[in-house]
Amino acid sequence: MEDTQLISEKVTQAVHILRELDIDLWLTFVRETSMAPDPALELIFGGDLTWHSAFLITKTGEKIALVGQYDSANLLEMGVYSEVIGYNEGIRAPLLEQLNRLQPRTIAINYSERDVAADGLSHGMFRTLHNYLAGSGFEERLISAEQINFHLRGRKSPIEIARIRQAVQTTEKLFDEIENFVRPGMTQREISDFVHGRIDEMGLGYSWPKPFNPIVTCGPDSAVGHAVPGDVALQKGHLLHIDLGVRENGYASDLQRMWYVLNDGETEAPPDVQRAFMAVSGAIQTGEKFLRPGTPGWKVDEAAREFIVDHGYPEYMHAFGHMMGRVAHDGGTVLGPQWERYKGSCELEVEVGNVFTLELHVVVEGRGIMSLEEDVVVTKEGVVYLSTPQDSIRYLGVG
Amino acid sequence: MEDTQLISEKVTQAVHILRELDIDLWLTFVRETSMAPDPALELIFGGDLTWHSAFLITKTGEKIALVGQYDSANLLEMGVYSEVIGYNEGIRAPLLEQLNRLQPRTIAINYSERDVAADGLSHGMFRTLHNYLAGSGFEERLISAEQINFHLRGRKSPIEIARIRQAVQTTEKLFDEIENFVRPGMTQREISDFVHGRIDEMGLGYSWPKPFNPIVTCGPDSAVGHAVPGDVALQKGHLLHIDLGVRENGYASDLQRMWYVLNDGETEAPPDVQRAFMAVSGAIQTGEKFLRPGTPGWKVDEAAREFIVDHGYPEYMHAFGHMMGRVAHDGGTVLGPQWERYKGSCELEVEVGNVFTLELHVVVEGRGIMSLEEDVVVTKEGVVYLSTPQDSIRYLGVG
Repeated sequence: MEDTQLISEKVTQAVHILRELDIDLWLTFVRETSMAPDPALELIFGGDLTWHSAFLITKTGEKIALVGQYDSANLLEMGVYSEVIGYNEGIRAPLLEQLNRLQPRTIAINYSERDVAADGLSHGMFRTLHNYLAGSGFEERLISAEQINFHLRGRKSPIEIARIRQAVQTTEKLFDEIENFVRPGMTQREISDFVHGRIDEMGLGYSWPKPFNPIVTCGPDSAVGHAVPGDVALQKGHLLHIDLGVRENGYASDLQRMWYVLNDGETEAPPDVQRAFMAVSGAIQTGEKFLRPGTPGWKVDEAAREFIVDHGYPEYMHAFGHMMGRVAHDGGTVLGPQWERYKGSCELEVEVGNVFTLELHVVVEGRGIMSLEEDVVVTKEGVVYLSTPQDSIRYLGVG
Repeated sequence: MEDTQLISEKVTQAVHILRELDIDLWLTFVRETSMAPDPALELIFGGDLTWHSAFLITKTGEKIALVGQYDSANLLEMGVYSEVIGYNEGIRAPLLEQLNRLQPRTIAINYSERDVAADGLSHGMFRTLHNYLAGSGFEERLISAEQINFHLRGRKSPIEIARIRQAVQTTEKLFDEIENFVRPGMTQREISDFVHGRIDEMGLGYSWPKPFNPIVTCGPDSAVGHAVPGDVALQKGHLLHIDLGVRENGYASDLQRMWYVLNDGETEAPPDVQRAFMAVSGAIQTGEKFLRPGTPGWKVDEAAREFIVDHGYPEYMHAFGHMMGRVAHDGGTVLGPQWERYKGSCELEVEVGNVFTLELHVVVEGRGIMSLEEDVVVTKEGVVYLSTPQDSIRYLGVG
């Protein structure tokens, strides 16, 4: 299975990251993962588990899965974990046995204040683990696995990048289909229903939840943000904006495209729309030039933010970009300002192999929102676009 | 929207439960819920949120949502929360403002060691909350909301029960379709593919993840447990067992049915199969008689477990039943033995309005597994079956 290959690659990558960080053991501790998923699990296992389960990956290359007996057959078949231990009555004893054998100086577990993708351990499970380890001395060796998760998730492998590229290309084809389908007078909901129909027909998934995917903004009267598409109809002289992401082979896209609906007699968008397009598009290109390995996230945002403000528009009240991978918001580094809610994540540094969205919007009074979003991957030399950037206004209602 | 009505009912129910438990405030604190869902959220909101968000429900009936500005339009439109506050830069200040106004003596948050459905707060988010409240005095008033979640999720409303009943009926129809489709010689995978096709065609969801749903066991050579259906083919003289659950209108079913494939010349199943059916079916009926309000979960399991052992079979190495609702494993009370991994959840008491599965299996040497599962709701007077219990062996290969 291709997924087993991908997961095997990621688990091996995890061993290298443990060496790099000099952490002896990474412990992923979960239960009932279909109700309580740990984002780390999709990188190192890719399935679901019912009873308390533990994945132990060590700096020395040991890969141990401790799972309920009914899950052990799957793990064995998968072949990624060199040791698969199925238990019956409880995980405490086999877990302590492994720790006693391995004698790790540090045990990294999945909690993080700044990175949701590194924060898969629930508070109750943290307490359970602490109780299980109480008196063993190992409870004193628990540390955050934030850095492990950050690097493992953020540094995309060639297989991962290929899958994201595919999801992006599919999304771009969908935008072309949307352009052929949409006519002035259609409502947000009609447009959204069309997109849902096509995504479901193609058997694709959604990069973020379906009710808000796509986000469809028709003219100035649509709610901005994570709103369910409503009854606002697209009118001449207004902007259509769509934020759409699909999930294909387990990887996501997240793109925004915009169209102007020509008014009777118009052959191109009016100056206010043109100016807004150049400002938003220019801000993305400006920010992109700062997206280089070693740069903290906030500096990339700052460049785009200054550009848009310098062009006479107000600041956008969100981040310029986020990591993308298994889902649209893939945790890790945020290309955002140093606000309370980006604290921690906007100081993280861009790395080779990171995939980011670059996005921002301005409001065009009386017309709607001008919003674009591109997907890029960071290389040693700079940035490679996974999307074909929207470099001019797209039009509806022509001919 | 019907869902808004359901959520409104549950939020009102939460206020009553806070009064009953004498807890001043229930705080649900989340972020990026499509990656890090809190099971409580589907009961009190039903959507997804991006930035740090807080839902405050008080004993006095206040219902406050503190969310990122881009999510506030949805909350307002929903109309369930009397106060919706959208913030821009960070949630700390508006959260403290609300706490200072409300002055709760106790603040219940979603962590629990024994109940995954009450354990939606991540350890990182717990630390974030603790930091936000540090020095305010409120950090000393944090308690577990385990009991709130337990009652709110477990005591199903009439709308919830009707939806579960519908999902169960749909599943029973699917079992009839499966019976018409299956022929000796088919593999687990062919049967599973047929079921997936039908579920997807009908636009239904899965009660647990699709790769393991349905579980299809063909004869004695299939792996038992949460295994992906493989290449084992169904043979004459073997048992076919299917564990299947669908999700319809947001609520789940979870049923197991079994068939015997007649051998040439046979007109009914041989005595070993007959005996196993009577034992498993009898154990379910015996356990069901102990499923009454006020009984701890382990006592229900004990009755079924004793029955099966008394009939000469080994104990099943799992629980006799679990709560069912939004998903198949709905947290709360487990009808399981007092083993380490059921500790805490098997001592919880059965309540009116609880929906449970009742399930167990025995192995029939050389033939496969005999496994049944029914879905029931607890009433004041006793138990009402939501499924039509399998009361005799079903046959394949007849005529």
